[in-house]
Amino acid sequence: MKIAILGFGTVGSGAYEAAKSANGIEVKRILDRRALSEHDDMRTTDFNDIVNDSEIDLVAECMGGIHPALDYVLAAMESGKHVVTPNKALVSAHYDELMECAARNHVEFRFTPAAGGGIPWLYNLQRSRRCDTIEEVHGIVNGTCNYILDSMHTNGKDFGEILKEAQDLGYAERDPSADIEGFDTLRKCVISTNLAFGTRVREEDIPVIGISAITSADINFFNRHGYVCRLLMNSEVSGSRISAYVEPTLLTPNHLEANVKANFNLISLTGKNVGTLSFYGQGAGKMPTGTSLVHDMIDINEGIGFSHAANEQAVSSEVDNTLEQHPYYFRLPAGTDFPADRIASEEKSDRSRYIITRSMSVSEAHKMAASYDGAFVAGIKE
Amino acid sequence: MKIAILGFGTVGSGAYEAAKSANGIEVKRILDRRALSEHDDMRTTDFNDIVNDSEIDLVAECMGGIHPALDYVLAAMESGKHVVTPNKALVSAHYDELMECAARNHVEFRFTPAAGGGIPWLYNLQRSRRCDTIEEVHGIVNGTCNYILDSMHTNGKDFGEILKEAQDLGYAERDPSADIEGFDTLRKCVISTNLAFGTRVREEDIPVIGISAITSADINFFNRHGYVCRLLMNSEVSGSRISAYVEPTLLTPNHLEANVKANFNLISLTGKNVGTLSFYGQGAGKMPTGTSLVHDMIDINEGIGFSHAANEQAVSSEVDNTLEQHPYYFRLPAGTDFPADRIASEEKSDRSRYIITRSMSVSEAHKMAASYDGAFVAGIKE
Repeated sequence: MKIAILGFGTVGSGAYEAAKSANGIEVKRILDRRALSEHDDMRTTDFNDIVNDSEIDLVAECMGGIHPALDYVLAAMESGKHVVTPNKALVSAHYDELMECAARNHVEFRFTPAAGGGIPWLYNLQRSRRCDTIEEVHGIVNGTCNYILDSMHTNGKDFGEILKEAQDLGYAERDPSADIEGFDTLRKCVISTNLAFGTRVREEDIPVIGISAITSADINFFNRHGYVCRLLMNSEVSGSRISAYVEPTLLTPNHLEANVKANFNLISLTGKNVGTLSFYGQGAGKMPTGTSLVHDMIDINEGIGFSHAANEQAVSSEVDNTLEQHPYYFRLPAGTDFPADRIASEEKSDRSRYIITRSMSVSEAHKMAASYDGAFVAGIKE
Repeated sequence: MKIAILGFGTVGSGAYEAAKSANGIEVKRILDRRALSEHDDMRTTDFNDIVNDSEIDLVAECMGGIHPALDYVLAAMESGKHVVTPNKALVSAHYDELMECAARNHVEFRFTPAAGGGIPWLYNLQRSRRCDTIEEVHGIVNGTCNYILDSMHTNGKDFGEILKEAQDLGYAERDPSADIEGFDTLRKCVISTNLAFGTRVREEDIPVIGISAITSADINFFNRHGYVCRLLMNSEVSGSRISAYVEPTLLTPNHLEANVKANFNLISLTGKNVGTLSFYGQGAGKMPTGTSLVHDMIDINEGIGFSHAANEQAVSSEVDNTLEQHPYYFRLPAGTDFPADRIASEEKSDRSRYIITRSMSVSEAHKMAASYDGAFVAGIKE
């Protein structure tokens, strides 16, 4: 199968390297504006050279961002080419349109590295559905946040200092907001949720709390109370009803997630038959992500697909977090009002209130969290 | 695809249940001596009714043990039927013969649940090889031993007491020797190693230390020194050379394996491209194992196979543990001789010597371990 790679950055070049050892995959064209030292003979700056080339059966979109990636991906599928991509921003924002375009043109659209990077998470999630009913997915899907949180717990440094360190190591972007505000985790939550439950949940329906407001005072409180903080995506079905949310989560150390170090990811599904399955590995990086993308190419080339279980139940795409309940942690500026009937326990310092709430609904907690300035809020899983 | 199930015990009945929700899989016959309340119309006691039935395309061997399972599996493949099985004793002991028989008859022989139960470990191991080079596999593959070790660490009870508890809970067999002497882990090591590296390593070539000699005195020592004990299988290649061994292992708590609780399994591969990938879940049980077996059936029915990377390197099947080195723990009866030049540190009680060795080869350590009576020996991973 002859393929084209759009964008020869980190993932594009990783996929090129990994494809060398894959039987049956041959890179014919690379789209990039920059001259390539080694492969410049196959480079083009004109997407028409790729979309009009009938020898090219598959396009690997590795440009990132929405534009022009979306136009290129849609055009490739409209012209009968399969598409693979690690682009979570694209897949999450245009899930419905992309899936519909692939179906209409009878081509494959795969994006295993879009959540979990090198981890075959989305692949196994779809495979599991063939004779099982997925009840829940959750996990750590952002290596940057995990690196920051793990480092804060381990060496007591403050958020800004660790973020700078992560940027210097290449674990965090120059503009880190998509990671630390939880939007990257949100995108992976949208994608995982929709593949797990056959839904069409949208980004704007899933409430998000990020980690940018966390301080070493919070970490001190967590360490003293035996909690480890991780940023988790969560979604769960009960009957036809679905809950989905992204929030920092305080975990007792017996949770596997509490023991995920540095920039690793760990993502889990719960199946009615199989119970909990977890998948751990590198959620980013040139060769892990590039290799995962090449596995998608091999699957398409070899006709490997996913049948569905005979007894699948329809799940609503309207997120409802009113029934999902657990306690929360709120750190608020001293003197801030907080409803007394929601407080299970509290510690105070000159500057802050450290509140553990009674069990409350995710929808209520996220509404309250959004109403406070200078607060850090996290869910609690015992 | 019409299938037959041989043996309607725990896994056979689990596979029957799981197959109900799989598209394209229809159970036609069940081989069992006992009357079945619900499905007795499809029961037979005569294997000939299955092997001579040209409508049956696939046989699921769920009898366990070597005889008559081996004869039935070989006969089914000779008559052109695919075979799936969770039977690790069978696959490990007759790996070469079974693979050769499948290849000769152009049928599929799959056994994903034979290591990892409900975890799609062997499936993903084979899938990874399509465009990556596996360098190492290791992990916790025996839930009984993990339950015992975790309980000993957590509540300080002694081995015999916990074993009895595990037997009452159904986590341990009435005759627990295959589990606690490490033979079950050995079988899963043989199977994982051979699938990872394309080798034909045999059970008798892999040295094994089990956990039956562990006492609460050992656990006290580990807890005081910040170690957690887990039974691990290990194999690793370096060039064309392979090392493989099974031993209790003392882990610092930053290892994911140290945080695997109760009877769960966690199994990892390291790929040259992808780095470390770990897979966690239920390593046994009716529905997890039965469901994993049905996934093998679906894969065969849908023609899902595993291509090989273009650049695979041949690995010797002769296990060589002389170059693999790490420190060991030896607990010996007081007064027992131990080579002084191998000792890094030691504690003594009236009854025992607790020795941490300098780094030594796996082959030397296992030879020494076999030479002592009443000793407990474990490898150490910092």
